This record gives sequence, structure tokens and C-alpha cells, in this order.
Amino acid sequence: MSDLSGQLLAVLQAVLPGKGVKALHEPEFAGNEWAYVKECIDTGWVSSAGKYVDEFEVRLAQFTGAKHVVAVVNGTAALQIALQLAGVQTGEEVLVPGLTFVATANAVVHCRGVPHFVDSADATLGIDPQALRIYLADIAEPTAGGWRNRVTGRRLAALVPMHALGHPIDMPKILDIAAQYALPVIEDAAESLGSSLFGRHTGTFGLMGTLSFNGNKIVTTGGGGAILTDDAELARHAKHLTTTAKRPHRWEFFHDEVGFNYRLPNLNAALGCAQLERLPDMLARKRRLAQSYRAQFAATTGMEFIDEPAGAMSNFWLNAVRIAGNIAERDAILAALNDAGYQCRPIWTLLHRLPMYESCPRAPLPVAQRLEARVIKLPSGASLVKS
Amino acid sequence: MSDLSGQLLAVLQAVLPGKGVKALHEPEFAGNEWAYVKECIDTGWVSSAGKYVDEFEVRLAQFTGAKHVVAVVNGTAALQIALQLAGVQTGEEVLVPGLTFVATANAVVHCRGVPHFVDSADATLGIDPQALRIYLADIAEPTAGGWRNRVTGRRLAALVPMHALGHPIDMPKILDIAAQYALPVIEDAAESLGSSLFGRHTGTFGLMGTLSFNGNKIVTTGGGGAILTDDAELARHAKHLTTTAKRPHRWEFFHDEVGFNYRLPNLNAALGCAQLERLPDMLARKRRLAQSYRAQFAATTGMEFIDEPAGAMSNFWLNAVRIAGNIAERDAILAALNDAGYQCRPIWTLLHRLPMYESCPRAPLPVAQRLEARVIKLPSGASLVKS
Repeated sequence: MSDLSGQLLAVLQAVLPGKGVKALHEPEFAGNEWAYVKECIDTGWVSSAGKYVDEFEVRLAQFTGAKHVVAVVNGTAALQIALQLAGVQTGEEVLVPGLTFVATANAVVHCRGVPHFVDSADATLGIDPQALRIYLADIAEPTAGGWRNRVTGRRLAALVPMHALGHPIDMPKILDIAAQYALPVIEDAAESLGSSLFGRHTGTFGLMGTLSFNGNKIVTTGGGGAILTDDAELARHAKHLTTTAKRPHRWEFFHDEVGFNYRLPNLNAALGCAQLERLPDMLARKRRLAQSYRAQFAATTGMEFIDEPAGAMSNFWLNAVRIAGNIAERDAILAALNDAGYQCRPIWTLLHRLPMYESCPRAPLPVAQRLEARVIKLPSGASLVKS
Repeated sequence: MSDLSGQLLAVLQAVLPGKGVKALHEPEFAGNEWAYVKECIDTGWVSSAGKYVDEFEVRLAQFTGAKHVVAVVNGTAALQIALQLAGVQTGEEVLVPGLTFVATANAVVHCRGVPHFVDSADATLGIDPQALRIYLADIAEPTAGGWRNRVTGRRLAALVPMHALGHPIDMPKILDIAAQYALPVIEDAAESLGSSLFGRHTGTFGLMGTLSFNGNKIVTTGGGGAILTDDAELARHAKHLTTTAKRPHRWEFFHDEVGFNYRLPNLNAALGCAQLERLPDMLARKRRLAQSYRAQFAATTGMEFIDEPAGAMSNFWLNAVRIAGNIAERDAILAALNDAGYQCRPIWTLLHRLPMYESCPRAPLPVAQRLEARVIKLPSGASLVKS
């Protein structure tokens, strides 16, 4: 076992002692989940109408500070609809991080755009504003209808910053650059429910933001997502599009756009309402877990805990560490840690390495490449820490 | 009140006496729904992995006779993926009924095709094979890569028969025509779980079939759908595409196609497993309700109960009646019946009347137009009939 593997294992054993597999992330149902879900079944309201789906939107708005929330079937659907409403047209380019979960790019393709990958900042793992500014100054040129990529000739239609592992990126700088290039900003906050920057919740800086409530997220609805926005008309349109674009009528089936069947079912929203009630407690325990990791990693060499950026309050959705090394070393460490019962994962494969995204436009990605080889995600569920 | 309204109201009062609103369709949870859902919550398996989603697929395969089943988030998603796997490419035409729920056409657009509307048969409400044969002989021309619409020049890529209100259409004739024009057949069986033709379940005649478990369906999962097929490779590919196209690996995030986050959550599948256990009983009660309607309508004039076609066993998802009249008369009747507490609905607005589908290619639709003006759907939930 390498020195790095040994040190990492020692950290994990100190932070998470005891037997049994330590999951990367697990949901925790310790509140009103039963009661609310049972009420859905007892009353028959399990599907796309019902009180919990409206209530879930209200509670998410209260928690995040977004003026409007539209609950949908998952985070990918949320991002797809937000991009469509931001005006992305077929074949236009959407700037996304090269280092993110594949769904960020998939959503761009689902709304018929072309992902265009940009580099990350070492500190936040998310888009690096400074590198983005330099890159856009090089490749963007103004046209009558906005800015286009001078290399491909395609319009630059939107910018999707993503708060990786829950750590907020520098949104004021991102917004400043976006304004310069007339780019609508859609924040992919799939991983950052509970994370804020300068006191403002992630997903509420841009034109729209999106959340995910997949089973591996801090709050789960089984499968689910949401669109956040302060724009009443965008919210109305998002709800309309995600509910088959049906015009309200006592009996008529009149739909006025190509809509989607993307409404979050009431059954899933009931779970979400109960989960949100316990979110502050889960955030507090995840913060304590991060503190344990931070303290343990302080005594190691050749590796560094990935901490919340300055000015940010992270949800520490997934704790992670940067190691010195390359992908082969990373994989040897992952094998050793997983063999020992600690579910550890790399950060994602860079999207331009995936066959379907090989030919997409991209900026130089030196930092993302370094992070790809060096970041290891660690077991992080709130249930690993006692209340 | 018109004579037709009066007669219809008398039928409804005879079939469904008593106070209170009679819903068009309501779910019924009287079996293991709560036990199974509770187990999901207690074990933490609520999301895209878990035993119920696999079990739901197995039970659906047993019930329908399909060799393979892939459970997804809803019927629209099922149809979109089936069309993509059938080879529908951007801008190609997919033949769909002009008279169907809007999701049939939306799914075509979601996979970047163009809906092409064809006429219905008066007896089944679904695609009329005879009219289709005459129409295709007129507009289809052979090319090296299949058949194309000689008017638009676009390839005819697939055919989507839909079993409206649960009544099976004449699939052998449809398959015969499809073979002649090399059209893959994707059966939209969203409304016809439990319906069969010549002893074979709807959705299992074509290359693939799709089901829906929305809240208004005979079996509900809150929101859900499924793809049926006898082709192992199509099933494998459908599951891969609907689970973000991730290659199995102990830790690596490697996705080899633009995938979708379309997997049915385990929480919803648990509901579905319990619902399927009670499906035979619900079908029996719905059949008794249809028998009551049939008997009452036998004594009326100027209207006719829509019965199951010859050789078919319908699930009678929604009972309906044909009236003599036009849309204005229909609407007056609908107002009277809904005012009296009977949730009645028209059949759908013809899709080419919706603004987004106005310019789509279409066959002459004389029968569909007549049906649009004359079909009224009646309260039909199994829970309206005692066990």
C-alpha cells in the first residue's frame, strides 16, 4: 500500500471508525417522511397534482430565497427546461465546465444545444472566472444577435456554472463576465442545496438555477429536481412547459406548445417536504463531518482537504481531497480504499473524454485535467454523524 | 337541457347513483401500497436503484407477456426512447394518429422527429388500417434508405398506433402495412394496460410498446412508464440510455452516449408492484362498470356506447359514448353533465388544431374529426364499483 493510500485510510478510520461499508452518500429518513407519504396514498393524491408538490415549491422558495420554484422530475429536466427558456436554439453553444457530472452536458444536448467546455479553478472545482475571461476575449466575437464563437461561427447562447460537490463558485465574477458577453446564466446547483455565497443561496444568482433531489443528494425525493428563478414570467412558463403546456379549461384538451411530462409527482414531493424539515440538522452534521476530515487531513502530507471557498458556506455534500499524483496512482488508491469498505470515488471523467462529447468545442483545460487525476471523494452522508 | 343531455344524465344516474362528484378516473390503493412504500423509506432505497424497480419490470413482463420491460419516469419518456431506438432521426416523419393525447406527438418532437397525422377508425378510435393503406399508397415512395413522403421528401421513420381509451386496434393489419413500408411499429399502449387482442397484450405486437402509470391510469406509480419489447438488445440499450448511459464500473464515471435521467425511482415502483397485484380485480370491476353502461345505453337513442372491438379484451380504461352532433352540442352536454357532478370529458382536440402542430403533414382526417365532435368520456374508475 502506498504512503498516500495508507495516510488516507488512516484519516478515514479516524473520522469514520467501526465496521461495515461506509457509503459515499446515503439518504436519511428520520422525520415526517412516513406520515406525508402515507397521507398521499390514503388520499389518493400521488401524481402530478396534490398539495405536497405546491408545498415543496413554497418551502424551497423559503429556504433558498428564490421568488419562484418549479418542481420537476429531476435535475437534468430542470436544466433542460431552464436552457430552453433562456433562449438556447438548435446548434447554439452553451458554456459548461469540462469537469462536471455528465448530466450538465446532456441537458444542453436535450435542448438541442452544443456543450462548450471551459476550465475549472483549483480552489472551487467549478468554472474559473479568470480563465473564462481570457478565453472569451480570445474566441468570442460580437454579432447583431449576440456573441458568437469565432472558431465555429455558432452563437454563444448561455453559461452554466456548476457548484461542484456543493462548493459555491465565485458567482459575482461569473455574472460580470456573462453580462459582458450577453450570456444568460443558468446555475447548476444540483449538488449545492444548502450552500450559499455571501449569504445568498446558490442557484439564485443567475437568471435561473436548478436543483436535484436524486437519491444521492442531501435531500431526496427518490427522483426530482427544481427550477429556481426570481422572474415570475419564466416561472409561469417553466410550469406550463413541464405540465404538457395545457391551457386551463374545465374539460378541453388544448395545449399551446410542445410540452413535457416533467412535473414532480406528489408522492415524491411529500418525501421532499419531510426531508426539507430536517435539512438544517443534516447540514449541521455534514459540517461537523467536514470539520473532522479537515482536522485529520491537516496532519497529512501530499494531500489536501477541499474546503469551502472564502465567503462561502458549503453544504459539504461530498467531502473530497486533492492528492499529489496521476490517474494511475489515483486508481490504485481508490482500489485500496474501496477494498477497505470506504466508498470513495474519483471526481468525474472530463466530459470531452467521453465519446459523444469528443468533438465539442473546448477551452484549454489544464486545471480540470489536474483535478481529474487528483480529486478523491470521500464518504459524506449526514447519517455518518450522530445528532 | 337537450334530449341528449337528459338521456346521458339518466344513464349516469342509473349507473352511478348517489351524491358526490364522480371522477373521470381515480386511483385506488387498497393492497400492499403502503407496506411496499414504507419498506423503501425504512431501507433508504427510494431512488433509481432498489428491488422494487426490478421487481416491477419482472411483474410487468409476466402480466403483459413481453420478454423485456424497462421502467422509466413516464409514458412520454418511454415513447421518446423507443422512437430513438427505432432509428428515428432528426427531421424524419413518424406516423401517429391525429386523434390521441398530445404526448404521442410530443414524444416524436422530443426525439427530433416530425409527427405526421393519420385518420382513425370509427369502431376503435385508433388508426384505421384501411385508410392508412390507401393514404400510404398515395404519398409514400421508395428510396434506397426506406420509404419517404413524396410531398415533403422526408423519410417515413416509424408508425405509432395508439390504443385509445384502452380499446385495442387491429394490430395484425397495422403490422402488415408497416412491413410493406419498412416502418418499425412502436405501440403507444399508455391507456391499455390489461387490454389484449386475440389473447395477446397490447404493446407486444410491435417492435416496442410503451405504457404509462400516470395518476389517471388504471395502475399508477405517481408518475411512471415502461418500454416493452421482445428484443433483448433493444431492452439493454433502452435501460442504458435511460440510466445516463453509464458503463458499469466500481468507481469510474464513464458514459458512452448522450443518456437520460429517465429511470423510474424505486419509491414509485413500489407503488406499482402493489397496484399490479390488484390489477386483475380492478379490471374485473371496470368490466362490470362497462357492462352497466352498455346495458343503459342500449335503451337510448342518438347515442352509442363505445364497446371493445371484435376479438379484443379491453381494459375499459375510460368508458365513452358517441353522440350525434357537433362540437357546440358536445360542449353544451359536457357543461350539463359536469354541472351535475359527473366528470365527463371530450376526446382530445385533434393534434393538427394545436398551434405547434398546425403545419405538420397529415392525411385527410374525416373520421377523426367526426369522433372529435362526438365522443364523450364518462366516469370510469374501478373504485366506482364495489368488489
